[in-house]
Amino acid sequence: MTPKPADFLFHNAFVLTMDQAMHQYEQGAVAVAGDTLLAVGPEPEVRAAWQAAQEVDCKGKVLMPGLVNAHTHVPMTLMRGLADDLRLDVWLQGYIWPVEREFVSPDFVRLGTLLACAELIRSGVTCFADMYFFEEDVARATREAGLRAVCGQTVLKFPSPDAPAFEDSLAAARDFIQRWKGHALIEPAVAPHAPYTCTPEILRQSAALAAEFDVPLHIHIAETALEVENMRRENGMPVVPYIKKQGLFDAKVLAAHCVHIDEGEMRTLVHARAGVAHNPSSNLKLASGFAQVQRMLDTGLNVGIGTDGTASNNDLDMFEEVRLAAFLAKTVSNDPTALPAPQALAMATRLGARALHLGNLTGTLEPGKRADLILVDIHSLHNSPHFRRNGDNVYSQIVYAGHATDVTDVMVNGKWLMQDRQLLTLDEAALLQAAQDYARRIDLFLVAREQSVFSKLIALGGSSEEESFEVQVKVKLDDPAPVIAAIEQPDVEILRKKHYHQHDVYFSFDDPSQGRLRFREDENVDEKGEITGVRGRLTLLGLAREGDFGHDVLLSRSRYLAPATNSLRFYREYFKPAAQVQIDKERHRWLVRYKDTEFYVNLDEVRQPPMGIFLEIKSRTWSREDARRKAELVSELITHLGGAIENTVTLDYIEIADKQ
Amino acid sequence: MTPKPADFLFHNAFVLTMDQAMHQYEQGAVAVAGDTLLAVGPEPEVRAAWQAAQEVDCKGKVLMPGLVNAHTHVPMTLMRGLADDLRLDVWLQGYIWPVEREFVSPDFVRLGTLLACAELIRSGVTCFADMYFFEEDVARATREAGLRAVCGQTVLKFPSPDAPAFEDSLAAARDFIQRWKGHALIEPAVAPHAPYTCTPEILRQSAALAAEFDVPLHIHIAETALEVENMRRENGMPVVPYIKKQGLFDAKVLAAHCVHIDEGEMRTLVHARAGVAHNPSSNLKLASGFAQVQRMLDTGLNVGIGTDGTASNNDLDMFEEVRLAAFLAKTVSNDPTALPAPQALAMATRLGARALHLGNLTGTLEPGKRADLILVDIHSLHNSPHFRRNGDNVYSQIVYAGHATDVTDVMVNGKWLMQDRQLLTLDEAALLQAAQDYARRIDLFLVAREQSVFSKLIALGGSSEEESFEVQVKVKLDDPAPVIAAIEQPDVEILRKKHYHQHDVYFSFDDPSQGRLRFREDENVDEKGEITGVRGRLTLLGLAREGDFGHDVLLSRSRYLAPATNSLRFYREYFKPAAQVQIDKERHRWLVRYKDTEFYVNLDEVRQPPMGIFLEIKSRTWSREDARRKAELVSELITHLGGAIENTVTLDYIEIADKQ
Repeated sequence: MTPKPADFLFHNAFVLTMDQAMHQYEQGAVAVAGDTLLAVGPEPEVRAAWQAAQEVDCKGKVLMPGLVNAHTHVPMTLMRGLADDLRLDVWLQGYIWPVEREFVSPDFVRLGTLLACAELIRSGVTCFADMYFFEEDVARATREAGLRAVCGQTVLKFPSPDAPAFEDSLAAARDFIQRWKGHALIEPAVAPHAPYTCTPEILRQSAALAAEFDVPLHIHIAETALEVENMRRENGMPVVPYIKKQGLFDAKVLAAHCVHIDEGEMRTLVHARAGVAHNPSSNLKLASGFAQVQRMLDTGLNVGIGTDGTASNNDLDMFEEVRLAAFLAKTVSNDPTALPAPQALAMATRLGARALHLGNLTGTLEPGKRADLILVDIHSLHNSPHFRRNGDNVYSQIVYAGHATDVTDVMVNGKWLMQDRQLLTLDEAALLQAAQDYARRIDLFLVAREQSVFSKLIALGGSSEEESFEVQVKVKLDDPAPVIAAIEQPDVEILRKKHYHQHDVYFSFDDPSQGRLRFREDENVDEKGEITGVRGRLTLLGLAREGDFGHDVLLSRSRYLAPATNSLRFYREYFKPAAQVQIDKERHRWLVRYKDTEFYVNLDEVRQPPMGIFLEIKSRTWSREDARRKAELVSELITHLGGAIENTVTLDYIEIADKQ
Repeated sequence: MTPKPADFLFHNAFVLTMDQAMHQYEQGAVAVAGDTLLAVGPEPEVRAAWQAAQEVDCKGKVLMPGLVNAHTHVPMTLMRGLADDLRLDVWLQGYIWPVEREFVSPDFVRLGTLLACAELIRSGVTCFADMYFFEEDVARATREAGLRAVCGQTVLKFPSPDAPAFEDSLAAARDFIQRWKGHALIEPAVAPHAPYTCTPEILRQSAALAAEFDVPLHIHIAETALEVENMRRENGMPVVPYIKKQGLFDAKVLAAHCVHIDEGEMRTLVHARAGVAHNPSSNLKLASGFAQVQRMLDTGLNVGIGTDGTASNNDLDMFEEVRLAAFLAKTVSNDPTALPAPQALAMATRLGARALHLGNLTGTLEPGKRADLILVDIHSLHNSPHFRRNGDNVYSQIVYAGHATDVTDVMVNGKWLMQDRQLLTLDEAALLQAAQDYARRIDLFLVAREQSVFSKLIALGGSSEEESFEVQVKVKLDDPAPVIAAIEQPDVEILRKKHYHQHDVYFSFDDPSQGRLRFREDENVDEKGEITGVRGRLTLLGLAREGDFGHDVLLSRSRYLAPATNSLRFYREYFKPAAQVQIDKERHRWLVRYKDTEFYVNLDEVRQPPMGIFLEIKSRTWSREDARRKAELVSELITHLGGAIENTVTLDYIEIADKQ
C-alpha cells in the first residue's frame, strides 16, 4: 500500500488523544492535512499510511489536543490586577464598571483580546468561550491571532459600553451572528449576562436569536449564593428552573459558574444538553463558593474549565485551573479519589469542547476533527522524575506538576501559532507596550477619581447601584384631596401604601461636578401616626440628565445608593461637604398599577423649607422604548389624578430649594 | 561623607522589604557585604552611603527576600507523581511506605534533596523546613546546593528506613544536632513525625532534645479530622492540648498543617510561640480539609506556607502555594477581602521565617539580616499590564499572576545560587538523569509487586497497618481452670473480658513468599452465650520474624490488616489462593494489667481442627528496650498463670495445623 499524502506528520510523540476511551500512544504519531487530523495512532501504523510534506519531531513531548478555556472575558487582560481583595460590589461598582464605562471601546477590546490570545497560546489554549462588549472586535482580533473561539456578544438590562439599551446589544448580536456564522475559527454567540442582570424579555429574545441561527448562548448562572437567594425570594424558584421558564433552553446553553445549583438543576441542564464552565480560581478569589464539580460530572454534564477574566484570576493559566479543579473536588467531596487527573484533563479538552457545543470540531485528537493541538514538555525539572507504571501517570504529570510554560508548540486549525515557544501570529513586545500605555491611563483616571465623593462613597463598602433609569415628573398642588380621591378610583389599582416622615440632608462640594450626596432617614409611620421603623440611605445624585421626554417628563440621572449604617455626624466628618441643606417632608406613597404598568405616586408636603405640596410620579425603566411608553403614561396619569400637566417640574426638591 | 565598602550593590530594583511595616522602594537599592544585608532603601540614599565591588542592575525587577517553604520532605521529589488520586491509607501503605522501605538510603536522600534544591532555587525559595529520614544527608546536600534549611530528623514509633527503633532515630538526631548546631546555613532539628505515629515517650524525649540544644522541633499536627477524632476518643482532648501535656512546648515547635484545630488550640500555639506551616495544595489533594488560616493569623500566629512533599503536591512551587493560600482563605472565610495579597506574600517570607524560628536571620530585607534574596520579573506577558495606583498592586502581581518561572536570580547568605535563570551550584542535567534512573527502578519494583497478594489487598482500599511489633508466647494446657482462677487473683488486674467464636480461613499461595492471608470472623458472645455481633477482618501474615527473646517469646512479624467488608466467597475469587485451611476456636480474651503493663491473655480452645487448649499472652511494643522488658514479663506471667514455661510455642495455629 502506498502511503497517502499529508501536510504534517508529528512523530516521536507521547500522544494523548483525550478521546472517550482515553487512548494514548507512548510512541505515537499524528498526520494532518489542511485543517484536519487524518490519523492518530502508533508511529509505525501512521507512518505506513501517510507520507507528509513536513515531519515534526516531537522529541518525546506529549502531543495532545489544545486546551479549551470554557469561560473568559479576554479584553479584561487590560484590567489585570487593577483592584484585588475587594468585595464583589466594591470591586465591580468601584473599579471595573467605572473603568469599563470610561475606557472600553473597539480599540480597547482589540488590544485586550490580542494580549489575551498571546497568553492563551503560550499556555496551550487553542479554543475559548468569551463574553464581552464589542464582541465582533473580539472575534476579529481572535481570528488575527489564529485561535478558535465562541464569541458571545453581551446583552444587559443596564446601559453598557457598547449599547445604551438592550435592544441595541441584541441588534448588534444579530448582525454579528449573521456576518460570522460558519466561520472556520469563530463561532458567534449571544451572551445575556446573567438572569439577575437581564429581564425575562432579554432572556427570551436572546434564546430566540440563538435558536434561530443555531449558535450557542453564553450566560453566568448561579455564581453566588446571594443570586440564588434573591431569585428564590423574587421568583419562588432557583436559577435553572427560572431560565428554563424563560425558554433559555431553546438555545444551546453554555452556563458559566453554576456554583450554587442543586441536583435537580443539574439534571435539568443535562436534559437541556447545556454545557457548564467551572471557574475554580475566580470562584475562590471572589469567595463565591465551591462548585459541586464531581456531582455535576456524575450527573452526566459536560463540565469544562475556565479561567474567567483576568480581573478575577489574575491570569489565563489553564494548567493552574485544571490542577485547582482536581484539588478542590477532592476536598469538597471529602474524597481524595474524586476528579482524578485523567478526568480533570478531559474537562479541559473533550468535555470543555462539548460544553462549548464544539465537540464535533475540537477537544480530542481523532481523525476528522480540526488539527487543534499542542506539544507539552514533560521532562522539565519540576516534572522529574516520572513514572510509567500505568497509563494514568502521564495525566498526573500534566495535571499535578505541569506548568503553562511547559507548552512549546501550538497549532490551531492546521496552522502553527507557536513553535519552540516563539509566537508566530502576534507581536508580543508591541502588545506589551500598548497594554502598558492603557494601564497608565487607567491608573491616572482612577488616581484622580480617588479624590471624589463617589469613590469615597464606594470606599465605604456595601454600596449598590440603583436601577439606572427612572422616568419621573412632579407637579405642585394647592389641595391634595382631589388627588387622594382620584387614586382611590377603581381604574388605578393600589398595590401598596406607605407614610413616611422623610428627613433629607444634602451635602454639596466645592467642585460641583462631584454631584450631591443625600443622607435620608425614612421614618415609617403607621395608621395611628406612630413611627414603626427608621431606614437610612446614602444616595449620590449626579448632574447629568439622561434625557427629557415631552411634558417635562425626566429620564433620570444614574445614581448610587448605599445603606447608611453610620450616623449623619460620621458622614459629615467623612465626606467633609462644603455646605449642607436639610429638607424635611411628609410623604404618602402609593405603589399603583395603571394600564398594566406600575408607578410610584408620592404626595409630598415639604415642610422644611416650607415649599408646599407636590404630586410626584415615578417609574423604573430598562429600555428606551419602555421609557418612551412610560413617559406618555406618566403624563396621562398626572392629568388623571388632577395635576395640571402644564405646571410640571423636573427639578429635585433640593434644586427648587437652591432657587428659592 | 565617604561611601563605605560593600560587596554588592543591587540597583534599579523595585525593592519589597516585606518587613513589618511593608516598606517598599520602587526605585530602590540594596547593599550586601559578606553574608549580610548592609542597607535597604531608596537608590540615592543607598548609593550615597555604600560603594560596592560589584553593581547588580536589577532592570526594574522586584528584589525581595527569598521565599520560605515552611514544610516539605525534599527527598520525596524522587517519588513525584508515583501514585495519585488515592485514599491516604492506600497511598501511604500501598505505595509510599513500601517504596521508602525498599529504596530510601543516604544515596536516595542525597539525590532527592539535590533535585529538590534545584527546583526550589528555580522557584525563588531560599529557605525551607524539612522532615525526613537520614536527615544529616539532607543537610549535607542542602549545604552543597547553598540553601538555608531547618533539617528535622524524623522519629517514629514504627521501624523506619534509617532506624529499626525510635531510640536509634533519637540518637541519630542528637548526633546530627551536635555536629551541625551553629552552621551558617543548616539549622538541625528533631522531627517526631506526628502525635499518632509517636508514643508520649517519643514526644517527651524529642522535646527534651530540642530544648537541650535550643533547636526547632518539627511535627505534623491535626492534619486530618480522623486524627482529631481518634485523639479525642483515646485521650479525651484534641491534638494541641495533648502535645502540650507531653511537654512538647518546652521546645520551639513548627507545627505543620493544623487543618483541624480550634481557637483555643490556636491561642495555645501563640502562647507557646509555636510556628504553623500551612500546606494548601497537599491539604486539598489528600482531601484533608480547609485550614482556618485567616483565623490563625488574626490570633497572632506566625503562619508560614509549605508545599509539603512532592508526592502530595506534586511540585515545590511556592508561587502556586501562596496564590492558593490567598484564594482558599477568601472562600473559606466567605470574605473576598480575607488574606489579601500583601499578607499572603508575608506568610511566604517574614511569617514563614518566624514560623521556622529563623526570623532573626531571614524572611525580610533589613540591615543586619542574612542576604537571602531573589529577583522576580514582573513584566512578563502573563503579568501585563500592571497598575501602580497604590502600593498593594505589586503584591497582587506576584501573588495572583506570578509564576515560579518569573524568578531570574537567587542569592542565599550572600552567595549566588542562580543568575539569569542559570543554576550555579547544581548540575541540573546530571540530577535529572540520576533521578530518572531511580524512577525506573521504582517502577520496576512496583510493577513486580502489583502481582502480589499484598498489593491486591491494598488495592481493595481501606487497609490499615497493624501496630508493627507484638511480643507473644503460647503454651498448651491440659486444663484451663487453674489459669482462669489465677487470672482472677488480685495481682492481675482485669481491664476487659471478651468471649468470641473465632472462624479463621487461611489462604496460601503458590509462591510462599507472598505470606498467608487470613479471613477472620469474630462472633462476639455475651454472658448468656448469645451472639451479639460479628466483625470480619483480613490479615496478611508475613513470614519473617523480627526476633526471638529467651523462653521462646516471639517479637512478631509485621502485618497488614483490613476490614473485611466483603464475603469469604468474594475474597476467594479475588485472591485465587492455591489452598485454604479453616481453623475454628473458642476464645476467651482478657485485657489485664500486670506489673503496670497491659497484656492480652487468650484462652483458646481450638475445635477445628481439634488441637486442644492454649494459653496465649500478647503485648504490643514500640521499641527494642520495651520489647525486651515485656518479653521477660510475659514469661513471668505465663508461669504465674500456671503455664509450663518449658512448653511454650511460638508458632501460629496455622503453623501447628500445617505440621499435623
